[in-house]
Amino acid sequence: MRLALIGAGRIGKVHARTIDLNPEVTLAAVADVHAEAAESLARQYGVRAISADAIFEDDGIDAVLIASSTPTHADYLERAAQSGKAVLCEKPIALDLARTREALKILEEHPVTCALGFNRRHDPQFAALKQAVADGRIGDMESLIIISRDPAPPPAEYVRASGGLFRDMMIHDFDMARWLLDEPIVQVQAQGSCLINPAIGEAGDVDTAMVTLVTASGRLCHISNSRRACYGYDQRIEAFGSAGMLQASNETETRLRFTGEPGQVEEKPKWFFLERYAQAYSAEINDFVDAWQQGRAPLAGAQDGLEALRLADAAQLSLLERRPVSLDEIG
Amino acid sequence: MRLALIGAGRIGKVHARTIDLNPEVTLAAVADVHAEAAESLARQYGVRAISADAIFEDDGIDAVLIASSTPTHADYLERAAQSGKAVLCEKPIALDLARTREALKILEEHPVTCALGFNRRHDPQFAALKQAVADGRIGDMESLIIISRDPAPPPAEYVRASGGLFRDMMIHDFDMARWLLDEPIVQVQAQGSCLINPAIGEAGDVDTAMVTLVTASGRLCHISNSRRACYGYDQRIEAFGSAGMLQASNETETRLRFTGEPGQVEEKPKWFFLERYAQAYSAEINDFVDAWQQGRAPLAGAQDGLEALRLADAAQLSLLERRPVSLDEIG
Amino acid sequence: MRLALIGAGRIGKVHARTIDLNPEVTLAAVADVHAEAAESLARQYGVRAISADAIFEDDGIDAVLIASSTPTHADYLERAAQSGKAVLCEKPIALDLARTREALKILEEHPVTCALGFNRRHDPQFAALKQAVADGRIGDMESLIIISRDPAPPPAEYVRASGGLFRDMMIHDFDMARWLLDEPIVQVQAQGSCLINPAIGEAGDVDTAMVTLVTASGRLCHISNSRRACYGYDQRIEAFGSAGMLQASNETETRLRFTGEPGQVEEKPKWFFLERYAQAYSAEINDFVDAWQQGRAPLAGAQDGLEALRLADAAQLSLLERRPVSLDEIG
Amino acid sequence: MRLALIGAGRIGKVHARTIDLNPEVTLAAVADVHAEAAESLARQYGVRAISADAIFEDDGIDAVLIASSTPTHADYLERAAQSGKAVLCEKPIALDLARTREALKILEEHPVTCALGFNRRHDPQFAALKQAVADGRIGDMESLIIISRDPAPPPAEYVRASGGLFRDMMIHDFDMARWLLDEPIVQVQAQGSCLINPAIGEAGDVDTAMVTLVTASGRLCHISNSRRACYGYDQRIEAFGSAGMLQASNETETRLRFTGEPGQVEEKPKWFFLERYAQAYSAEINDFVDAWQQGRAPLAGAQDGLEALRLADAAQLSLLERRPVSLDEIG
Repeated sequence: MRLALIGAGRIGKVHARTIDLNPEVTLAAVADVHAEAAESLARQYGVRAISADAIFEDDGIDAVLIASSTPTHADYLERAAQSGKAVLCEKPIALDLARTREALKILEEHPVTCALGFNRRHDPQFAALKQAVADGRIGDMESLIIISRDPAPPPAEYVRASGGLFRDMMIHDFDMARWLLDEPIVQVQAQGSCLINPAIGEAGDVDTAMVTLVTASGRLCHISNSRRACYGYDQRIEAFGSAGMLQASNETETRLRFTGEPGQVEEKPKWFFLERYAQAYSAEINDFVDAWQQGRAPLAGAQDGLEALRLADAAQLSLLERRPVSLDEIG
Repeated sequence: MRLALIGAGRIGKVHARTIDLNPEVTLAAVADVHAEAAESLARQYGVRAISADAIFEDDGIDAVLIASSTPTHADYLERAAQSGKAVLCEKPIALDLARTREALKILEEHPVTCALGFNRRHDPQFAALKQAVADGRIGDMESLIIISRDPAPPPAEYVRASGGLFRDMMIHDFDMARWLLDEPIVQVQAQGSCLINPAIGEAGDVDTAMVTLVTASGRLCHISNSRRACYGYDQRIEAFGSAGMLQASNETETRLRFTGEPGQVEEKPKWFFLERYAQAYSAEINDFVDAWQQGRAPLAGAQDGLEALRLADAAQLSLLERRPVSLDEIG
Repeated sequence: MRLALIGAGRIGKVHARTIDLNPEVTLAAVADVHAEAAESLARQYGVRAISADAIFEDDGIDAVLIASSTPTHADYLERAAQSGKAVLCEKPIALDLARTREALKILEEHPVTCALGFNRRHDPQFAALKQAVADGRIGDMESLIIISRDPAPPPAEYVRASGGLFRDMMIHDFDMARWLLDEPIVQVQAQGSCLINPAIGEAGDVDTAMVTLVTASGRLCHISNSRRACYGYDQRIEAFGSAGMLQASNETETRLRFTGEPGQVEEKPKWFFLERYAQAYSAEINDFVDAWQQGRAPLAGAQDGLEALRLADAAQLSLLERRPVSLDEIG
Repeated sequence: MRLALIGAGRIGKVHARTIDLNPEVTLAAVADVHAEAAESLARQYGVRAISADAIFEDDGIDAVLIASSTPTHADYLERAAQSGKAVLCEKPIALDLARTREALKILEEHPVTCALGFNRRHDPQFAALKQAVADGRIGDMESLIIISRDPAPPPAEYVRASGGLFRDMMIHDFDMARWLLDEPIVQVQAQGSCLINPAIGEAGDVDTAMVTLVTASGRLCHISNSRRACYGYDQRIEAFGSAGMLQASNETETRLRFTGEPGQVEEKPKWFFLERYAQAYSAEINDFVDAWQQGRAPLAGAQDGLEALRLADAAQLSLLERRPVSLDEIG
């Protein structure tokens, strides 16, 4: 697969490196609105820095990875589909449902392999948990608890443009919930507070949140978010069922343990997503290439992006109106 | 302290044994509506089996431990106060707020040392967690997660008389939440399902529940309950704050680990409250005697019983009306 | 069982308390060469302080617990046997084989229930490990690793009278090895150094030691000792076999875990034997009473004391002559 | 660095893959006495399959990685040095000291960057442990315990040609001991048994062994080896010192934990060296290239191979003569 990368920022660089190590994919070109960024990254991997337009016109390019800024995702996604290229798009497609639905419509008209960057589905731990649940290890799942905390809060200006904690951060957890619960979610209840940085509150957002989801059959799911866990990226999932419980816990660099003052000490969890989900980014590309080659759906697709956004919108509404929100209300 | 025990059932027996091992307390008598049960237990410890009436009239008895059936608690509590005896009462005082408030009024008029059987406050782990939070170990607490699952569901007839999961089971977690959050709780949101035993649903109750509490300053607390964890009593608390996280986890009989098929295997958690909270029952009696001797308030008192019941009532209302309930509504 | 206690020092006090909590045993009297110590302890439990002579002459006394200084053990043991009283004797019977053998001869002539204070056999963890091995959990045991470290070294004068690390400290591990290997040990190889306190070296002893044992069938056992583990009492056993491995690890007061600076921190191991083996002391008394009542052998008896001492002597000789020593050489 | 690979077997393939992913190194050619094996591997990476002779004659090749069969190591190592190429040689250089010393002499005459494949020095856990010891985390190290067990025994014919457990398997642990103790080892005591496969015994070898090392300053080190740990590759190190203890424990694929029947279950350790030391192989190549570029010594060199072999020979002699062996005896 000859793959072009749009977006040469932090996450773009991660993808470039992953692609470089993957014998199944060749990095074909890099584009970025900041020409310098594109050129610097392209030079590093010995490829061309070209415009996004040029990418969509280039018949030698099979696929596009969209890692540009969020407001450009939907446009690039549509152009990739219209030019018949497979596309792996960073989440979210857009911050509002209407624009997301438009993009999905274009995808329907121009069916291409379309994967969405819900990287956690590719995390070995969560994938093993999903598999164990599917294997009946815990019997019937009855409740699900997702703890998800970032190491440090973003600047308030980022928050202002982010669509809010539910659409920007918890959207990953909504996707995990959907993926693991594996049945329709019918109700969303959200609570949130601004406890970490008042500037986030002034920007109209919360930095600490708890959400309860209810599925059609009555399963319950709890999601906890915090924008700041001083000890690193806190990413845990607990699935409880009639025959037992599965817990995926935080990862550390090594299993080294020191015993002495101040006790029995193990390392802190890995710092952030680049460290924790390094393997996931690699598995994500593998899944994308594999899906494209086999003509099958990737592990996470555009529809998953839409559904996670609906949950985020429901949570936002629930927080605003201080009431549980039925998914039907969201449309 | 010469202490009489009212109630010779399962929990009464636990208390009798604990009292017997405590050099500060002498078991003075046992009463039970089932004379045989009282006599059998009394015989075991070489004491008298007498009526509850006789206990309250006996000037040689300093204190009463009420471990009889829930509907009798409030009456016995009032009579203990009226006869000037210290009292350790199993929770709840009553299943409704009005009756509970009456009992509190009598206690106000007849001030005696009154402890309430919220045994978890005396658990070494939760006590150490509380102390570490008080010591500023996690900075400002921002969220609290309480997982509390029983090993096996009670029979449906028990459920019918129990006041429901929130008043019967989660009331312990409400007390933990109040104790650890250490500031007023202003809002309660509950979700519940009947996923384990349909008979529980037919009895008008749920067997799986998730509740979110919000405090005056915006701290968030999640409580998960299940009536059946096939692996044993699941009792964990996680307190998260600006400077770190504290987790109290399940206890096992030993630290033995087997490595082989099917992996690295440690024991299941202790089976139920008698095993997990054995030390707590002993510490509870110590605290009661100590409070009585020093004329100080015990770690958990009648007011704590009232407040936990208000939270349970709020949760029940929230579940019923599918909306968040403000504590002010409960009165 | 009416039990008299000889020795009112640290370990005597532990036993007194354990006996007091055991409904099957009544503390009958306390003796100590220091009359004051005996009286103080006797007063605490409302019993008589009498001489050791008086204990052996008292027909109302069923059993004697010998917790006096080591050089008195053998004499008291013999007198207990001669007066027909059951006896629980702290280890060792004596510091030399000849004196130990004399005592065993008297026991043979006057058979009474005789238990030896190898408290670790009664530890719930090690007992569970033993049981799991017996149940075939690890198939054929092939190697055994015993880590045993004290929290702080004793004063050099104690060391001088102790018989040396092998007879004083590692003797417990020799007993564990014999008990778990469950077949004759044929060879002992010892290495030792003085790395902690030069005064221990000047007293002719080592403070750090490693011993390898070989059994008749070729199983290998490693024992590591240190007189000082700054983090507390380090008591671990690992049994490895054809079908897996069992590990008994250190215990902590609670399962509380803090995550933050400097990492994920759990408590240090329990400080020393009184904390770690509290349950074992209680189980030891139970086993003794039970053995006496049923006329069966206790879990550890006088012969076990002799055999552990033979291993210690072999280790001492191995260290001195820098060569492996066959048990046959010890006699 | 243009690197040629000699040896296209299992370990050769691992190295080829690692080299392919390393942007600092280019795989230049592959050689193997089995031409087909060389060609197959060469084809996979799009390089030439040539003879070893051709490699040494090719001026365009900077370095050679020797992953051929053990008896060929010393010859290839010498030829690499003589042709002025940097060399990374799988351990051991040879199975006997004389041949090893000859090779070292050639290296002295033709000084090139020479790294030896003691892959464990590059393991992130052991490297972190080494660093923590160097940082004074445990104060003065006093004892070291190395557990090292393979998942399954090799066939008896392999054993026959292997030089025996000490030279073939424990040699890695001897290197770890030397690296971590960081001072001369003066005495070696070995015990060994054949408990797993009688054919190994018939081949004159043991499959279970325990060795004690003593350093010049009296530090003690224990090494346990077994040829078969049914649960996977058991690779642990414990360093104990005056200020605490460091433990590097086994790694598992994920941190997933199941609680239910038969308990709290985590994954088994990674299966064997390819899984456990995957990162180490990559770090080993990095260190080699880096050492070559900077003209510094690699983390493990030819002299380390010689010293580990001396320890293995001492252990073999100790086992044979059933006595401790001084390193001085080995020459």
